[in-house]
Amino acid sequence: MIQKIDHIGIAVHSINDALPLYTEVFGMKLEAIETVENQGVKVAFLFAGNIRLELLEALSEESPIAGYLAKRGEGIHHIALGVEGIESRIEELKEKGITMIDDTSRLGAHEAKVAFIHPKSTARVLFELCEQQN
Amino acid sequence: MIQKIDHIGIAVHSINDALPLYTEVFGMKLEAIETVENQGVKVAFLFAGNIRLELLEALSEESPIAGYLAKRGEGIHHIALGVEGIESRIEELKEKGITMIDDTSRLGAHEAKVAFIHPKSTARVLFELCEQQN
Repeated sequence: MIQKIDHIGIAVHSINDALPLYTEVFGMKLEAIETVENQGVKVAFLFAGNIRLELLEALSEESPIAGYLAKRGEGIHHIALGVEGIESRIEELKEKGITMIDDTSRLGAHEAKVAFIHPKSTARVLFELCEQQN
Repeated sequence: MIQKIDHIGIAVHSINDALPLYTEVFGMKLEAIETVENQGVKVAFLFAGNIRLELLEALSEESPIAGYLAKRGEGIHHIALGVEGIESRIEELKEKGITMIDDTSRLGAHEAKVAFIHPKSTARVLFELCEQQN
């Protein structure tokens, strides 16, 4: 069902402030910075050698990331699970009793199709299903 | 400096209770369950197609995982960064002003050499340096 770990999302107050640790200290490659309006986030894509880290900054107070930062502070936000056939995978999860936040996929960063699983079904780990289009 | 993401650590109250989600629902492969006495944890290694997830259960109230669960609850605990020459990497980080929890490496699960970076240096993300011996 799950093919791989696609990326790890990290919530930060400021991508500009957070970047030097990842690029200058850890030596990861900054691939792109992108705005995802429908999720209210700015995303920095960092390649860590095998998978990506994504730094997530809120674009507004209404962003889910703003809510997360207010409640939990900065830190690891989600694990993205790489899948194929995301709509079928969502149905499969629901049949197995898993609660979804997103009942159908929506467009995320890099035009990927994404859907979040409700953390009450996963012992408080926020998992995202993620199907890359390219 | 960082070669890859080695694994993601997830704190759980009970490996037995958490496992079915990962193996039966997500279809990940349980590779081993191991006890790491010097860290006070039981660890379940799950292969997710490209990297591992590690479920961490406290062996006693004195375990750092027990402290984490009491303070933050279940959830994503740390990201392990795969490195070579871990003692030199620790020195390099300290020279760059990063605070380490472990000033020298110690043996972690699977006989890997590990050292944790203090999250005050990394915007509250707990990173582990990890050098596999095989």
